[in-house]
Parts: sequence; structure tokens; C-alpha cells
Amino acid sequence: MPRTNTDVAESLAAAGRRFYARGWVLGTSGNFSVVTHRDPLRLAITASSLDKGSLDTSHILDVDETCTVHGGTGNPSAETLLHFEIVRRRGAGAVLHTHSVWSTMLSDSHGLDGGLNIEGYEMLKGLDGVRTHAHREWVPIVPNDQDMTRLAGVVGTTLDAHPAGHAILLQRHGLYTWGASLADAVRHVEIFEFLFETIGRTAAYRSRGGHHGIAQDS
Amino acid sequence: MPRTNTDVAESLAAAGRRFYARGWVLGTSGNFSVVTHRDPLRLAITASSLDKGSLDTSHILDVDETCTVHGGTGNPSAETLLHFEIVRRRGAGAVLHTHSVWSTMLSDSHGLDGGLNIEGYEMLKGLDGVRTHAHREWVPIVPNDQDMTRLAGVVGTTLDAHPAGHAILLQRHGLYTWGASLADAVRHVEIFEFLFETIGRTAAYRSRGGHHGIAQDS
Amino acid sequence: MPRTNTDVAESLAAAGRRFYARGWVLGTSGNFSVVTHRDPLRLAITASSLDKGSLDTSHILDVDETCTVHGGTGNPSAETLLHFEIVRRRGAGAVLHTHSVWSTMLSDSHGLDGGLNIEGYEMLKGLDGVRTHAHREWVPIVPNDQDMTRLAGVVGTTLDAHPAGHAILLQRHGLYTWGASLADAVRHVEIFEFLFETIGRTAAYRSRGGHHGIAQDS
Amino acid sequence: MPRTNTDVAESLAAAGRRFYARGWVLGTSGNFSVVTHRDPLRLAITASSLDKGSLDTSHILDVDETCTVHGGTGNPSAETLLHFEIVRRRGAGAVLHTHSVWSTMLSDSHGLDGGLNIEGYEMLKGLDGVRTHAHREWVPIVPNDQDMTRLAGVVGTTLDAHPAGHAILLQRHGLYTWGASLADAVRHVEIFEFLFETIGRTAAYRSRGGHHGIAQDS
Repeated sequence: MPRTNTDVAESLAAAGRRFYARGWVLGTSGNFSVVTHRDPLRLAITASSLDKGSLDTSHILDVDETCTVHGGTGNPSAETLLHFEIVRRRGAGAVLHTHSVWSTMLSDSHGLDGGLNIEGYEMLKGLDGVRTHAHREWVPIVPNDQDMTRLAGVVGTTLDAHPAGHAILLQRHGLYTWGASLADAVRHVEIFEFLFETIGRTAAYRSRGGHHGIAQDS
Repeated sequence: MPRTNTDVAESLAAAGRRFYARGWVLGTSGNFSVVTHRDPLRLAITASSLDKGSLDTSHILDVDETCTVHGGTGNPSAETLLHFEIVRRRGAGAVLHTHSVWSTMLSDSHGLDGGLNIEGYEMLKGLDGVRTHAHREWVPIVPNDQDMTRLAGVVGTTLDAHPAGHAILLQRHGLYTWGASLADAVRHVEIFEFLFETIGRTAAYRSRGGHHGIAQDS
Repeated sequence: MPRTNTDVAESLAAAGRRFYARGWVLGTSGNFSVVTHRDPLRLAITASSLDKGSLDTSHILDVDETCTVHGGTGNPSAETLLHFEIVRRRGAGAVLHTHSVWSTMLSDSHGLDGGLNIEGYEMLKGLDGVRTHAHREWVPIVPNDQDMTRLAGVVGTTLDAHPAGHAILLQRHGLYTWGASLADAVRHVEIFEFLFETIGRTAAYRSRGGHHGIAQDS
Repeated sequence: MPRTNTDVAESLAAAGRRFYARGWVLGTSGNFSVVTHRDPLRLAITASSLDKGSLDTSHILDVDETCTVHGGTGNPSAETLLHFEIVRRRGAGAVLHTHSVWSTMLSDSHGLDGGLNIEGYEMLKGLDGVRTHAHREWVPIVPNDQDMTRLAGVVGTTLDAHPAGHAILLQRHGLYTWGASLADAVRHVEIFEFLFETIGRTAAYRSRGGHHGIAQDS
């Protein structure tokens, strides 16, 4: 477990490289944070408007709940408020936001449903606390909003309404997920991005004359 | 051919990196084994809950048929039972489980058929014992199950029912294949993952108004 | 900001490697330029007929508005005229042309519409001057033409007709975008390539029985 | 231009790595050759049954027209006959066979047409001798055959029937293309693989309710 600020910063930069290689944080999108102190609450979070695949440790900011920067170079993203909201509501140790094609597409296509149901996949077992593929994971879809304070409020309310959930989708904006540690959160990102692509391709295959399988709510 | 435990461990870690780069073992999914001793039977197998793209040699466990760990750091996956089942039934030297989007999708869409037929592809010639593209490869699809002992039994029965087969699919869980050597098994993984993607895209192309080709049972 | 010709050349070569890795400049396609002097106008531009993923600094040409080469090895692409046209009309500091599958496909499918409308995506906020996902970005599609002088004229007229736009598509030929700096232009390429893929996949998902989301003009 | 056998072997291995990274030569598929001597005709060609992404120079064989091996480690592929056929008919300096998902899929879907027509794409200008996107490229599709002598005869007849063509597809087997040099042939592979993917995605987009563009024969 990383102990120093440099370790944390390097881990966040490494996560950025990993996600960038997958095409999940193109065009300076995405933001990643790790809790570095609980009381008072402090995050190490990626600076805004930077290519997340080429971060160096100076690009990781040390911020408090007022979004005041105490270290690092750059400005915090407005979405920092969402990171704090998730950390407080879920007691998370790390929060990750990726911005993939599949998550963006499904958040749009399922927007009117208010969410996306995923069940029956073995991959779900990689989510904290999930022990079986028969698990039913509801991923709420929250309408996007440029008023970040308002959006953070909606995200908070949504998290409270779905206390067992592991992620939320912002419509046409991407995935937010979290974990007790950065490694847990990275694993969650990979699991959800995998599931979004699988669901996207499965619905397409079926309606094009492919074969039938287990009934699927999505 | 790797002779020492370190060689075997490094080969397994290399296979993990290769598969991870393709997106076939995201979110700590997948597991890989090599037979290191026949009588008594011993496997070198990847530890559970680890990112398979970043394994180091300490993450490769030395286990016996009771799944007791004799070396390495970590816990063996429950799926270790499946590896032993396949090794015993097929006399395999290596067993690989990958967890790709296309294999997961097809295992779902063809689940009610109980399997997937693949024929006519030159790529099939890369499978052990196959000499012509006119080969007909049946890939059974086994329903997923969290009771690993029960699942191992079903896998064993399925393998006996299809003695010429080179792989099985676990529904919404991915591919299991094997080979006399790790290199053979890696080649088999690449062949099946290629064929799953080709089949998935072909059915889509045809039903969307694309042209007609050789009749295909899948 | 790169100050010397070598810095500029290395930055262009690095952009080439990045785009090549994505598959956006296969088969020696694509061309990239940076303004090195304003009056008289001079560009550092990639030489023609080279693999853009393997450029070295000698492959970056120093050209003036008559396309005379003052430094570097190789011949300038005929498309150099388009780069100058965009630089003059937009005051751009860098112009990038990528040639991806998705951009080529959408430029073809939307050709009769004369353009492609993109709105509602958070990713649009990465475009210079765009502050909200509610932004409506019109990407004109210009018919391809081997007469480069004529094509440059049409591109110029199109740019003037859409002064707020950030990109144009050449039909079955790919994307042209620009920025105040090379980093801005690279960010724009990634944003548009992401959006093209998302739009391509979304339309497909909807008409195959996927769910409904926000009304979309594309 | 490579002069020595080691240079040629390294260039072929590099081409293998490049194609493997794209997923175009999975599972030991694919084979690549360069003409090293004209009279008598001698090829440097990849040995059979090897992972084409991990070749070293010893895996490149020096063969004559009887397929006798004069240097290198391994056995020549039976497809060596196809390489010689293409070299003789076209005077090529290099022949490349890749085995991608998209080429395999289109060779299957268009099999009954006997070929695939590609026109209107700027990318076609990268093919030797092609000066305009208005070019019409016919890619014949030849039924696969395990009798390599017979297949070489059919390939030869097909090449003679389409003297302006730059490639052929073997049904459910992949792409064969060539060039005066290895660099030309590599460029041709990238161009055709790009075009196959674009055509595959375009037909899908149109029939799913996407917009209409230039009439396309494929």
C-alpha cells in the first residue's frame, strides 16, 4: 500500500497510463483520486486539462474539501466535488472516472431507463462483496450537469438510494467507480468497462439474428 | 521447453502480459497453469485475485490435487479444480482460461444451443491434430456454477462426451483451452479468441444486408 | 512550448507515434504541421509517403507558402495547401490530419447531409472555447478532390461558413482539425475520433433494439 | 534498403511484430517473404508454425523454388508455393500474408461474389500506381484449398485475370498482398486491412438506419 505522496502520485499516473492505453481517457478526459488523509479529508487528485496518459507526479494535486490546492502543479477539475461526494458517502479510499466509448454510448442509450442492469456475468464477482455471478448490479445513470454543486448533490442522493451499488454513469459523460484502495478501484473500472462492451455487443448480436441465451434485463 | 520452476513461472507471467494486452484478462480475471509433475500431479498455477497482466514469479503457486499450496505467494483460485480436471481428462501439459468480451458474448448468445460450431476456417488448422480448414470444431458451452466441485464434474463429463474438442466455454464466464505445452495452449487461446470475434462479426454483417458466403452452422 | 526546430520535429514525430498506435494513420496516411513563423508564414510539416508512426526529425520539412522546401528530407504532401489554408483562415498554430476507420466511415455515411452534428457529449468540452456538453458542434463534410488548389478553396469557403467549428471531414478521406498549439490540436484529434466512434456505435445500438436516450440529430 | 541477409531477416521480424500488435497474425498465422535473388529465384521467408510476433532472425529461411531450405531454422510453410507464384506473376520483391478478423469475415461474406470491389477511398492512393481516390480496386476471393499446388495454380490464374490488382483474398483464410519492396508490401497490408474494416463497418451502419453516402458496390 503506497505510504508517501510520491508513491500515491506514481500509482495514479500508472493508472492513467493503463487507462489511456485502452482508449478510456482520450482528449484529457478522466480524473482519478486517492484519499491521503481522513480527518480532515484530503485527496491526491489529477490536475485538470491534462493528458491522463502522460501524467507525472507533479500533476497530482493535494486538495482539501474546499478544493484548495496544497501541493502539486495545476488546477483541480470541477469534478473534484464528485470525488469528495463519493468518498464521503461510500467511505471509499479511491475514486476513478473514465470516459470510454462504450460507457458513453450505453449511458446515452439507457438514459431514459435511469440506469442499466447487469447480471449473470462471472466478471461481477470481481466487485467488492460480490460472491456469485447471479448478482444483480444496478448502475444508475445520472443526467449530466455543468453545475457541479448540483450534480454532486444528485450523485450523493443516487448513491444513498443504491447503497449496494459499485458505480454510477453520468449521461454521455462516462463512468464513476471507487474502491477501498486504488487497486480495487482500478479493478472495478476494468470490470465495468468490460461489462459495458459485452452488453453493447450482446444486444446487437441478438437482434441481428444471433442465438438466444439467458434472459437479460439490459 | 522450460525446465525450472522459475522458467515456468516466467512463461506464465509472459502469457498473462500477452493476454492482458489484448484485453482478454481484465479485472483480475483469467487463470493459467502448467503441469510440473505427473505422478503425483502438481501444477504451477496463477494465484487468485491478481492482475494477470502484472504477474511476477512469486505469484505462481505450486499446488497439488488437494489444492494445497507448496510454494509461491497467494491463494489458488477455486477454478484450480477445473485445471486439474482438464489435465486429467486430456493429459494436457497446460491449461489456460481467458475472459474476453467476444467469448463471453458468444457463450451467452449460443447458450441454449449447448455449444458453438466452428468450421471452414483456415485458422482451425492451428489446433492440435487438425489438418484442414474443413474441420468441424464443436465448442461446448457449460452453464456457470459457483459450486466448483459440481462444475468440475460437469466439465469432466463434457470433455468425455467430446473427446476431439480443444476448448469449452463457461457461460458468461469465458474460454478454457489447453495444450501439450504452454506454447500450444497459448496458440489455442489466440485461435479461439480470433474465431469468436470473426463469428460474432460475420453473423452481424450478414443479417445487416451484407453478402452471402459459405453456409455456416453458427 | 517547443522553441527550436528539433523540438517541433520531435513533437510531430511523437504525435505520429501516438496516432499510429491507435490505428489512425495506417499505410502512410495522415499529415501534421506546426507553424514555425508567422510572417512570412512557415510550417514544419511531415514529409509525404512516410509511415507516420516511425518518423524521425529529418522527415519534418520546413516549407513556405509556395510549398518550397527549406529544410528536411523528402517531399511535402499535396495536402500542404490545406494546412496553409486552415492556418490562414483560423490563425491555427498546428494542423493535424488523421485517417481513421470511424471518421472515414461517418464521412461517407453522412456525406449527403453535408456534415455531421454532434451535441450533448461532455467530451465536447475539451474543444477550445466550449464550456458545456450542451454545445452543438457541426462538422462539415467536404467532397474529396485530387485538385488540391480547388479543394483548398472549398475548405477555405467551408471554414468561413462555419467560423465556430473545430474540424472538417473530407469524404472518405478523414479528419482535419487544428489548435492554437500542437497539444491543443492533438487533444482535438482525440476528442473527434472518440466522438465519431461513439456516434457510430450509438446509432447501431439504437436501431438494433437498444434503448432510447436523448434525441440525437446525427 | 536491406542489403544483407541479416537486414532482411530483421525487417521481416519487425513486420511480424507490427502486424502481431494489430492482431493480424494471431495463433502462428501469417507468413512473409522477401526476394533475395532473382535468377535463380530465392526467398527469405518466415518458418512455419511460429508466433509471427516473436520472430528472431534464425526463424527466417532461405529457400529456393523447390522449397529446399538453404539456411535458417525450421520448416517452410506449404504456402511458400503461393509466395513464389505471386513473385513470378507480379515481379514482386516481397509478399505478405496476414490473417485478420475483418479480412477473414469479408472473404467469407463476399465469397459468392468471387471478389470485393473497393472504390472512392483516398486510402487507395497508397497502392502502387494509384493516383486518385476514384480508383476501382477489385480484390478477387479465391476458395481455400489444402492442395497447395492446385491453390497456387488458381492464384496464378486469378492474378493473370486481374493484372492491375494489388491483393487477393483466400476465403476464410486471409489476405495476400505484395510490393516491389517490403516497405511497399507492408504499406499495402495496412491499406487493405484498413479498407476491409471500413467497408465492414460502413455496410453495417447503413443498414441499421445510418445515413446514405456515395453509392458503393461492395
